[in-house]
Amino acid sequence: MVLVRPRNPLNIGAAARAMSNFGAHRMRLVNPYTAAFREARSAVGASSLLRNAEEFETVAEAVADCCLVVGTTAVRSRVLQHPLKGLAQAGNAVRKQLQRGRVALLFGSEKIGLTNDDFSHCHWLLSIPTHEEHISMNLGQAVAVCLYELARGKPAKSVPGDIPLATAGDAEQITRGLLEALNISGYIKPGTSVMFEQKARRLIRKLHLEAYDAKLLLGMVRQVLWKLHQAEVHHSEEK
Amino acid sequence: MVLVRPRNPLNIGAAARAMSNFGAHRMRLVNPYTAAFREARSAVGASSLLRNAEEFETVAEAVADCCLVVGTTAVRSRVLQHPLKGLAQAGNAVRKQLQRGRVALLFGSEKIGLTNDDFSHCHWLLSIPTHEEHISMNLGQAVAVCLYELARGKPAKSVPGDIPLATAGDAEQITRGLLEALNISGYIKPGTSVMFEQKARRLIRKLHLEAYDAKLLLGMVRQVLWKLHQAEVHHSEEK
Repeated sequence: MVLVRPRNPLNIGAAARAMSNFGAHRMRLVNPYTAAFREARSAVGASSLLRNAEEFETVAEAVADCCLVVGTTAVRSRVLQHPLKGLAQAGNAVRKQLQRGRVALLFGSEKIGLTNDDFSHCHWLLSIPTHEEHISMNLGQAVAVCLYELARGKPAKSVPGDIPLATAGDAEQITRGLLEALNISGYIKPGTSVMFEQKARRLIRKLHLEAYDAKLLLGMVRQVLWKLHQAEVHHSEEK
Repeated sequence: MVLVRPRNPLNIGAAARAMSNFGAHRMRLVNPYTAAFREARSAVGASSLLRNAEEFETVAEAVADCCLVVGTTAVRSRVLQHPLKGLAQAGNAVRKQLQRGRVALLFGSEKIGLTNDDFSHCHWLLSIPTHEEHISMNLGQAVAVCLYELARGKPAKSVPGDIPLATAGDAEQITRGLLEALNISGYIKPGTSVMFEQKARRLIRKLHLEAYDAKLLLGMVRQVLWKLHQAEVHHSEEK
Protein backbone atom coordinates (compact mmCIF):
# COMPACT_ATOMS: atom_id res chain seq x y z
CA MET A 1 0.00 0.00 0.00
CA VAL A 2 1.73 3.14 -1.22
CA LEU A 3 0.12 6.55 -0.66
CA VAL A 4 1.63 9.17 -2.98
CA ARG A 5 1.57 12.75 -1.65
CA PRO A 6 -1.35 12.32 0.77
CA ARG A 7 -2.46 15.60 2.38
CA ASN A 8 -5.17 14.70 4.89
CA PRO A 9 -4.20 13.01 8.17
CA LEU A 10 -7.70 11.52 8.50
CA ASN A 11 -7.28 9.78 5.16
CA ILE A 12 -3.88 8.40 6.13
CA GLY A 13 -5.42 7.09 9.35
CA ALA A 14 -8.43 5.65 7.49
CA ALA A 15 -6.15 3.90 5.00
CA ALA A 16 -4.20 2.35 7.89
CA ARG A 17 -7.42 1.20 9.53
CA ALA A 18 -8.68 -0.47 6.35
CA MET A 19 -5.30 -2.17 5.98
CA SER A 20 -5.55 -3.74 9.41
CA ASN A 21 -9.20 -4.70 8.75
CA PHE A 22 -8.16 -6.65 5.69
CA GLY A 23 -4.77 -7.93 6.81
CA ALA A 24 -2.40 -5.76 4.79
CA HIS A 25 0.75 -4.91 6.73
CA ARG A 26 3.14 -2.61 4.99
CA MET A 27 2.29 1.06 4.52
CA ARG A 28 4.57 3.34 2.53
CA LEU A 29 4.21 7.04 1.86
CA VAL A 30 5.84 9.04 -0.91
CA ASN A 31 6.33 12.72 -0.09
CA PRO A 32 3.45 13.00 2.36
CA TYR A 33 2.46 16.48 3.47
CA THR A 34 4.70 16.54 6.58
CA ALA A 35 2.17 17.98 9.03
CA ALA A 36 -0.46 15.47 7.90
CA PHE A 37 1.82 12.48 8.41
CA ARG A 38 2.88 13.75 11.84
CA GLU A 39 -0.73 14.31 12.87
CA ALA A 40 -1.91 10.92 11.60
CA ARG A 41 0.92 9.17 13.42
CA SER A 42 0.29 10.89 16.72
CA ALA A 43 -3.51 10.46 16.63
CA VAL A 44 -5.08 8.65 19.58
CA GLY A 45 -5.34 4.99 18.71
CA ALA A 46 -2.91 5.20 15.80
CA SER A 47 -2.00 1.64 15.01
CA SER A 48 1.47 0.14 15.05
CA LEU A 49 0.96 -0.24 11.31
CA LEU A 50 0.78 3.54 11.00
CA ARG A 51 3.66 4.11 13.40
CA ASN A 52 5.78 1.74 11.31
CA ALA A 53 4.83 3.38 8.02
CA GLU A 54 7.89 4.12 5.88
CA GLU A 55 8.51 7.39 4.10
CA PHE A 56 10.16 7.72 0.66
CA GLU A 57 11.10 10.61 -1.58
CA THR A 58 10.30 8.96 -4.89
CA VAL A 59 7.89 6.35 -6.21
CA ALA A 60 10.89 4.46 -7.65
CA GLU A 61 12.36 3.97 -4.16
CA ALA A 62 9.01 3.09 -2.59
CA VAL A 63 8.34 0.24 -5.04
CA ALA A 64 11.91 -0.95 -5.66
CA ASP A 65 11.40 -4.37 -3.99
CA CYS A 66 8.03 -5.08 -5.63
CA CYS A 67 7.54 -7.30 -8.67
CA LEU A 68 4.15 -5.83 -9.58
CA VAL A 69 3.20 -2.17 -9.31
CA VAL A 70 -0.46 -1.23 -9.80
CA GLY A 71 -1.72 2.36 -9.95
CA THR A 72 -5.27 3.36 -9.04
CA THR A 73 -7.22 5.91 -11.04
CA ALA A 74 -10.75 7.25 -11.34
CA VAL A 75 -9.99 8.48 -14.85
CA ARG A 76 -11.77 6.66 -17.61
CA SER A 77 -12.40 9.24 -20.30
CA ARG A 78 -8.81 10.49 -20.75
CA VAL A 79 -6.71 8.34 -22.99
CA LEU A 80 -4.52 6.31 -20.68
CA GLN A 81 -1.25 4.89 -21.92
CA HIS A 82 -1.55 1.89 -19.62
CA PRO A 83 -3.76 -1.17 -19.59
CA LEU A 84 -6.74 -0.53 -17.29
CA LYS A 85 -8.49 -3.29 -15.33
CA GLY A 86 -11.70 -3.15 -13.36
CA LEU A 87 -11.24 -3.90 -9.65
CA ALA A 88 -12.65 -7.44 -9.73
CA GLN A 89 -10.36 -8.47 -12.57
CA ALA A 90 -7.46 -6.63 -10.93
CA GLY A 91 -8.05 -8.56 -7.71
CA ASN A 92 -7.47 -11.88 -9.47
CA ALA A 93 -4.30 -10.64 -11.13
CA VAL A 94 -2.89 -9.23 -7.89
CA ARG A 95 -3.65 -12.36 -5.85
CA LYS A 96 -1.87 -14.47 -8.45
CA GLN A 97 1.19 -12.24 -8.41
CA LEU A 98 1.34 -12.19 -4.59
CA GLN A 99 2.52 -15.80 -4.79
CA ARG A 100 5.66 -14.64 -6.53
CA GLY A 101 6.66 -11.47 -4.73
CA ARG A 102 5.53 -8.18 -3.28
CA VAL A 103 2.83 -6.13 -4.96
CA ALA A 104 2.58 -2.34 -4.60
CA LEU A 105 -0.83 -0.67 -4.84
CA LEU A 106 -0.42 3.07 -5.52
CA PHE A 107 -2.98 5.68 -4.44
CA GLY A 108 -2.56 9.31 -5.47
CA SER A 109 -3.21 12.51 -3.57
CA GLU A 110 -6.77 13.50 -2.68
CA LYS A 111 -6.89 16.38 -5.13
CA ILE A 112 -5.19 15.22 -8.31
CA GLY A 113 -4.56 11.52 -7.93
CA LEU A 114 -1.49 9.99 -9.58
CA THR A 115 0.48 11.84 -12.26
CA ASN A 116 1.70 10.45 -15.58
CA ASP A 117 5.15 10.22 -14.04
CA ASP A 118 3.73 8.09 -11.18
CA PHE A 119 1.91 5.96 -13.75
CA SER A 120 5.16 5.32 -15.61
CA HIS A 121 6.29 3.18 -12.66
CA CYS A 122 3.16 1.01 -12.91
CA HIS A 123 2.66 -2.23 -14.81
CA TRP A 124 -1.04 -1.47 -15.19
CA LEU A 125 -3.83 0.57 -13.63
CA LEU A 126 -7.01 -0.35 -11.82
CA SER A 127 -10.23 1.55 -11.56
CA ILE A 128 -13.10 1.03 -9.12
CA PRO A 129 -16.31 0.87 -11.15
CA THR A 130 -18.30 3.88 -9.89
CA HIS A 131 -21.28 5.76 -11.31
CA GLU A 132 -20.74 8.23 -14.12
CA GLU A 133 -22.29 11.09 -12.14
CA HIS A 134 -19.85 10.76 -9.26
CA ILE A 135 -16.73 8.89 -10.25
CA SER A 136 -14.18 10.10 -7.72
CA MET A 137 -13.98 8.26 -4.39
CA ASN A 138 -12.72 9.40 -1.01
CA LEU A 139 -9.15 8.09 -0.47
CA GLY A 140 -9.86 6.11 2.71
CA GLN A 141 -12.93 4.50 1.16
CA ALA A 142 -11.13 3.65 -2.06
CA VAL A 143 -8.40 1.91 -0.06
CA ALA A 144 -11.04 -0.04 1.90
CA VAL A 145 -12.88 -1.15 -1.24
CA CYS A 146 -9.66 -2.26 -2.99
CA LEU A 147 -8.43 -4.25 0.01
CA TYR A 148 -11.87 -5.81 0.47
CA GLU A 149 -11.79 -7.01 -3.12
CA LEU A 150 -8.27 -8.43 -2.71
CA ALA A 151 -9.31 -10.30 0.44
CA ARG A 152 -12.61 -11.35 -1.12
CA GLY A 153 -11.27 -13.96 -3.47
CA LYS A 154 -9.68 -17.10 -2.20
CA PRO A 155 -5.92 -16.86 -2.07
CA ALA A 156 -4.52 -18.18 -5.32
CA LYS A 157 -2.93 -21.59 -4.98
CA SER A 158 0.79 -21.38 -5.34
CA VAL A 159 1.99 -22.99 -8.50
CA PRO A 160 5.03 -25.16 -7.99
CA GLY A 161 8.14 -24.07 -9.82
CA ASP A 162 7.01 -20.50 -10.25
CA ILE A 163 9.76 -18.39 -11.70
CA PRO A 164 10.81 -15.35 -9.67
CA LEU A 165 10.00 -12.02 -11.27
CA ALA A 166 12.18 -8.95 -11.60
CA THR A 167 11.55 -6.28 -8.97
CA ALA A 168 10.66 -2.69 -9.83
CA GLY A 169 14.20 -1.81 -8.73
CA ASP A 170 15.70 -4.15 -11.36
CA ALA A 171 13.42 -2.67 -14.02
CA GLU A 172 14.41 0.84 -13.02
CA GLN A 173 18.13 0.01 -13.38
CA ILE A 174 17.51 -1.27 -16.90
CA THR A 175 15.46 1.82 -17.71
CA ARG A 176 18.23 4.12 -16.45
CA GLY A 177 20.88 2.27 -18.43
CA LEU A 178 18.78 2.28 -21.58
CA LEU A 179 18.08 6.00 -21.27
CA GLU A 180 21.78 6.70 -20.84
CA ALA A 181 22.66 4.67 -23.91
CA LEU A 182 19.97 6.38 -25.96
CA ASN A 183 21.13 9.76 -24.75
CA ILE A 184 24.71 9.10 -25.81
CA SER A 185 23.45 7.74 -29.11
CA GLY A 186 21.45 10.87 -29.84
CA TYR A 187 18.11 9.04 -29.90
CA ILE A 188 16.58 11.43 -27.39
CA LYS A 189 15.93 14.88 -28.83
CA PRO A 190 16.51 17.94 -26.64
CA GLY A 191 13.32 18.99 -24.83
CA THR A 192 11.63 15.58 -25.12
CA SER A 193 13.54 13.82 -22.35
CA VAL A 194 10.86 13.82 -19.60
CA MET A 195 8.11 12.41 -21.79
CA PHE A 196 10.51 9.97 -23.34
CA GLU A 197 11.72 8.85 -19.94
CA GLN A 198 8.14 7.98 -18.98
CA LYS A 199 7.65 6.19 -22.28
CA ALA A 200 10.79 4.11 -21.81
CA ARG A 201 9.80 3.29 -18.24
CA ARG A 202 6.34 2.12 -19.33
CA LEU A 203 7.91 0.00 -22.04
CA ILE A 204 10.25 -1.81 -19.64
CA ARG A 205 7.45 -2.35 -17.06
CA LYS A 206 5.19 -3.86 -19.70
CA LEU A 207 7.73 -6.58 -20.40
CA HIS A 208 7.01 -8.24 -17.01
CA LEU A 209 10.57 -9.48 -16.96
CA GLU A 210 11.59 -12.53 -15.00
CA ALA A 211 14.40 -11.94 -12.51
CA TYR A 212 16.93 -13.91 -14.55
CA ASP A 213 16.06 -12.17 -17.81
CA ALA A 214 16.27 -8.78 -16.11
CA LYS A 215 19.80 -9.61 -14.97
CA LEU A 216 20.69 -10.70 -18.47
CA LEU A 217 19.25 -7.56 -20.07
CA LEU A 218 20.94 -5.32 -17.52
CA GLY A 219 24.27 -6.95 -18.32
CA MET A 220 23.72 -6.32 -22.02
CA VAL A 221 22.76 -2.71 -21.52
CA ARG A 222 25.76 -2.11 -19.30
CA GLN A 223 28.16 -3.60 -21.78
CA VAL A 224 26.79 -1.48 -24.59
CA LEU A 225 27.02 1.53 -22.30
CA TRP A 226 30.61 0.72 -21.48
CA LYS A 227 31.43 0.57 -25.17
CA LEU A 228 29.65 3.84 -25.86
CA HIS A 229 31.53 5.53 -23.04
CA GLN A 230 34.83 4.15 -24.32
CA ALA A 231 34.09 5.61 -27.71
CA GLU A 232 33.34 8.96 -26.10
CA VAL A 233 36.57 9.03 -24.12
CA HIS A 234 38.46 8.04 -27.20
CA HIS A 235 36.81 10.80 -29.15
CA SER A 236 37.63 13.47 -26.58
CA GLU A 237 41.22 12.32 -26.08
CA GLU A 238 41.78 12.75 -29.72
CA LYS A 239 40.79 16.41 -29.78
CA MET B 1 -29.24 3.08 3.27
CA VAL B 2 -30.29 3.63 6.86
CA LEU B 3 -27.84 5.05 9.39
CA VAL B 4 -28.99 4.39 12.93
CA ARG B 5 -27.85 6.94 15.55
CA PRO B 6 -24.76 8.18 13.68
CA ARG B 7 -22.67 10.60 15.78
CA ASN B 8 -19.89 11.82 13.48
CA PRO B 9 -20.70 14.31 10.70
CA LEU B 10 -17.66 13.16 8.71
CA ASN B 11 -19.04 9.63 8.67
CA ILE B 12 -22.46 10.81 7.54
CA GLY B 13 -20.78 12.77 4.74
CA ALA B 14 -18.58 9.81 3.81
CA ALA B 15 -21.59 7.49 3.67
CA ALA B 16 -23.37 9.94 1.35
CA ARG B 17 -20.31 10.14 -0.88
CA ALA B 18 -20.04 6.36 -1.18
CA MET B 19 -23.75 6.20 -2.00
CA SER B 20 -23.35 8.58 -4.91
CA ASN B 21 -20.20 6.73 -6.05
CA PHE B 22 -22.17 3.49 -6.30
CA GLY B 23 -25.54 4.82 -7.42
CA ALA B 24 -27.59 4.48 -4.23
CA HIS B 25 -30.07 7.34 -3.88
CA ARG B 26 -32.06 7.31 -0.70
CA MET B 27 -30.42 8.09 2.63
CA ARG B 28 -32.35 7.76 5.86
CA LEU B 29 -31.21 8.51 9.37
CA VAL B 30 -32.74 7.22 12.58
CA ASN B 31 -32.20 9.48 15.57
CA PRO B 32 -28.98 11.06 14.37
CA TYR B 33 -27.03 13.15 16.83
CA THR B 34 -28.64 16.48 15.85
CA ALA B 35 -25.50 18.59 15.70
CA ALA B 36 -23.77 15.97 13.56
CA PHE B 37 -26.57 15.82 11.03
CA ARG B 38 -26.73 19.61 10.84
CA GLU B 39 -22.97 19.85 10.35
CA ALA B 40 -22.87 17.13 7.68
CA ARG B 41 -25.71 18.77 5.78
CA SER B 42 -24.14 22.20 5.79
CA ALA B 43 -20.64 21.01 4.88
CA VAL B 44 -19.10 22.53 1.76
CA GLY B 45 -19.87 20.27 -1.16
CA ALA B 46 -22.62 18.38 0.64
CA SER B 47 -24.49 16.52 -2.05
CA SER B 48 -28.16 16.87 -2.88
CA LEU B 49 -28.38 13.28 -1.67
CA LEU B 50 -27.35 14.44 1.79
CA ARG B 51 -29.55 17.50 1.71
CA ASN B 52 -32.51 15.28 0.81
CA ALA B 53 -31.76 12.73 3.54
CA GLU B 54 -34.83 11.88 5.59
CA GLU B 55 -34.90 11.72 9.35
CA PHE B 56 -36.93 9.21 11.37
CA GLU B 57 -37.45 8.56 15.04
CA THR B 58 -37.58 4.79 14.87
CA VAL B 59 -36.12 2.01 12.75
CA ALA B 60 -39.66 0.77 12.12
CA GLU B 61 -40.65 4.00 10.41
CA ALA B 62 -37.42 4.25 8.46
CA VAL B 63 -37.82 0.80 6.89
CA ALA B 64 -41.61 0.77 6.54
CA ASP B 65 -41.69 0.77 2.73
CA CYS B 66 -38.91 -1.82 2.24
CA CYS B 67 -39.46 -5.45 1.38
CA LEU B 68 -36.11 -6.60 2.73
CA VAL B 69 -34.28 -5.23 5.77
CA VAL B 70 -30.65 -6.25 6.31
CA GLY B 71 -28.61 -5.31 9.38
CA THR B 72 -24.84 -4.99 9.34
CA THR B 73 -22.65 -6.25 12.17
CA ALA B 74 -19.02 -6.88 12.96
CA VAL B 75 -20.04 -9.28 15.71
CA ARG B 76 -19.31 -12.90 15.00
CA SER B 77 -18.57 -14.52 18.35
CA ARG B 78 -21.74 -13.49 20.17
CA VAL B 79 -24.66 -15.77 19.56
CA LEU B 80 -26.80 -13.98 17.03
CA GLN B 81 -30.46 -14.76 16.78
CA HIS B 82 -30.49 -13.98 13.10
CA PRO B 83 -29.16 -15.70 10.05
CA LEU B 84 -25.76 -14.21 9.20
CA LYS B 85 -24.44 -13.97 5.65
CA GLY B 86 -20.99 -12.96 4.46
CA LEU B 87 -21.00 -9.85 2.29
CA ALA B 88 -20.52 -11.62 -1.06
CA GLN B 89 -23.44 -13.98 -0.40
CA ALA B 90 -25.52 -11.08 0.96
CA GLY B 91 -24.87 -9.13 -2.23
CA ASN B 92 -26.50 -11.80 -4.36
CA ALA B 93 -29.53 -11.99 -2.10
CA VAL B 94 -29.98 -8.20 -2.03
CA ARG B 95 -29.64 -7.81 -5.80
CA LYS B 96 -32.29 -10.48 -6.31
CA GLN B 97 -34.67 -8.76 -3.93
CA LEU B 98 -34.09 -5.35 -5.51
CA GLN B 99 -36.00 -6.64 -8.56
CA ARG B 100 -39.07 -6.83 -6.40
CA GLY B 101 -39.00 -3.76 -4.17
CA ARG B 102 -36.91 -1.56 -1.87
CA VAL B 103 -34.18 -2.97 0.32
CA ALA B 104 -32.98 -1.27 3.53
CA LEU B 105 -29.38 -1.68 4.64
CA LEU B 106 -28.94 -0.73 8.31
CA PHE B 107 -25.68 0.58 9.78
CA GLY B 108 -25.38 1.17 13.52
CA SER B 109 -23.67 3.94 15.45
CA GLU B 110 -19.87 4.21 15.41
CA LYS B 111 -19.46 3.11 19.03
CA ILE B 112 -21.88 0.27 19.61
CA GLY B 113 -23.30 -0.69 16.24
CA LEU B 114 -26.87 -1.98 16.02
CA THR B 115 -28.71 -3.15 19.13
CA ASN B 116 -30.76 -6.30 19.46
CA ASP B 117 -33.80 -4.09 19.12
CA ASP B 118 -32.53 -2.78 15.78
CA PHE B 119 -31.74 -6.34 14.71
CA SER B 120 -35.30 -7.34 15.41
CA HIS B 121 -36.38 -5.27 12.40
CA CYS B 122 -34.04 -7.18 10.12
CA HIS B 123 -34.70 -10.21 7.96
CA TRP B 124 -31.10 -11.24 8.32
CA LEU B 125 -27.66 -9.79 9.04
CA LEU B 126 -24.54 -9.34 6.98
CA SER B 127 -20.95 -9.16 8.06
CA ILE B 128 -17.92 -7.91 6.14
CA PRO B 129 -15.19 -10.54 6.39
CA THR B 130 -12.36 -8.76 8.21
CA HIS B 131 -9.27 -10.04 10.02
CA GLU B 132 -9.67 -11.43 13.53
CA GLU B 133 -7.18 -8.96 14.99
CA HIS B 134 -9.11 -5.93 13.81
CA ILE B 135 -12.72 -6.74 13.07
CA SER B 136 -14.44 -3.39 13.43
CA MET B 137 -14.54 -1.10 10.41
CA ASN B 138 -14.94 2.65 10.13
CA LEU B 139 -18.56 3.49 9.30
CA GLY B 140 -17.87 5.39 6.07
CA GLN B 141 -15.56 2.62 4.84
CA ALA B 142 -18.04 -0.13 5.76
CA VAL B 143 -20.76 1.65 3.76
CA ALA B 144 -18.40 1.99 0.77
CA VAL B 145 -17.41 -1.69 0.86
CA CYS B 146 -21.05 -2.88 1.11
CA LEU B 147 -22.23 -0.69 -1.74
CA TYR B 148 -19.26 -1.73 -3.86
CA GLU B 149 -20.23 -5.38 -3.37
CA LEU B 150 -23.85 -4.67 -4.30
CA ALA B 151 -22.79 -2.83 -7.46
CA ARG B 152 -20.14 -5.44 -8.23
CA GLY B 153 -22.59 -8.03 -9.49
CA LYS B 154 -23.80 -5.86 -12.35
CA PRO B 155 -22.66 -6.82 -15.85
CA ALA B 156 -19.15 -5.59 -16.57
CA LYS B 157 -18.61 -2.71 -18.99
CA SER B 158 -17.30 -3.41 -22.46
CA VAL B 159 -13.55 -3.75 -22.90
CA PRO B 160 -11.73 -1.73 -25.60
CA GLY B 161 -10.48 -3.68 -28.60
CA ASP B 162 -7.48 -5.97 -28.47
CA ILE B 163 -4.07 -4.42 -29.04
CA PRO B 164 -2.12 -5.83 -32.01
CA LEU B 165 0.95 -7.89 -31.12
CA ALA B 166 4.38 -7.84 -32.69
CA THR B 167 5.01 -10.45 -35.39
CA ALA B 168 7.81 -13.00 -35.19
CA GLY B 169 9.49 -10.95 -37.92
CA ASP B 170 9.49 -7.84 -35.74
CA ALA B 171 10.93 -9.83 -32.86
CA GLU B 172 13.63 -11.29 -35.06
CA GLN B 173 14.73 -7.88 -36.29
CA ILE B 174 15.12 -6.75 -32.70
CA THR B 175 17.03 -9.92 -31.87
CA ARG B 176 19.41 -9.42 -34.82
CA GLY B 177 20.05 -5.81 -33.94
CA LEU B 178 20.65 -6.67 -30.31
CA LEU B 179 23.08 -9.46 -31.19
CA GLU B 180 25.02 -7.17 -33.51
CA ALA B 181 25.29 -4.49 -30.83
CA LEU B 182 26.44 -7.04 -28.26
CA ASN B 183 28.97 -8.43 -30.69
CA ILE B 184 30.50 -5.03 -31.31
CA SER B 185 30.47 -4.33 -27.59
CA GLY B 186 32.36 -7.53 -26.81
CA TYR B 187 29.54 -9.05 -24.72
CA ILE B 188 29.56 -12.27 -26.72
CA LYS B 189 32.60 -14.42 -26.07
CA PRO B 190 34.16 -16.32 -28.99
CA GLY B 191 32.74 -19.85 -29.30
CA THR B 192 29.55 -19.08 -27.39
CA SER B 193 27.73 -17.19 -30.08
CA VAL B 194 25.30 -19.91 -31.22
CA MET B 195 24.04 -20.70 -27.74
CA PHE B 196 23.89 -17.07 -26.90
CA GLU B 197 21.95 -16.27 -30.04
CA GLN B 198 19.29 -18.77 -29.00
CA LYS B 199 19.24 -17.34 -25.53
CA ALA B 200 18.72 -13.81 -26.83
CA ARG B 201 15.99 -14.99 -29.18
CA ARG B 202 14.12 -16.78 -26.41
CA LEU B 203 14.43 -13.67 -24.29
CA ILE B 204 12.89 -11.40 -26.93
CA ARG B 205 10.10 -13.90 -27.72
CA LYS B 206 9.21 -14.22 -24.07
CA LEU B 207 8.47 -10.52 -23.92
CA HIS B 208 5.29 -10.97 -26.00
CA LEU B 209 5.78 -7.49 -27.37
CA GLU B 210 2.94 -5.44 -28.71
CA ALA B 211 3.42 -4.19 -32.29
CA TYR B 212 3.93 -0.58 -31.26
CA ASP B 213 6.45 -1.43 -28.55
CA ALA B 214 8.39 -3.65 -30.94
CA LYS B 215 8.73 -0.75 -33.38
CA LEU B 216 9.90 1.50 -30.55
CA LEU B 217 12.48 -1.02 -29.33
CA LEU B 218 13.75 -1.65 -32.84
CA GLY B 219 14.29 2.08 -33.33
CA MET B 220 16.28 2.24 -30.11
CA VAL B 221 18.44 -0.73 -30.99
CA ARG B 222 19.15 0.66 -34.47
CA GLN B 223 20.20 4.03 -33.14
CA VAL B 224 22.61 2.46 -30.66
CA LEU B 225 23.96 0.27 -33.47
CA TRP B 226 24.49 3.28 -35.68
CA LYS B 227 26.47 4.97 -32.92
CA LEU B 228 28.58 1.87 -32.32
CA HIS B 229 29.34 1.59 -36.03
CA GLN B 230 30.29 5.24 -36.21
CA ALA B 231 32.78 4.70 -33.38
CA GLU B 232 34.23 1.69 -35.22
CA VAL B 233 34.67 3.51 -38.50
CA HIS B 234 36.25 6.36 -36.66
CA HIS B 235 38.61 3.97 -34.90
CA SER B 236 39.72 2.24 -38.12
CA GLU B 237 40.19 5.46 -40.04
CA GLU B 238 42.53 6.57 -37.40
CA LYS B 239 44.80 3.55 -37.66
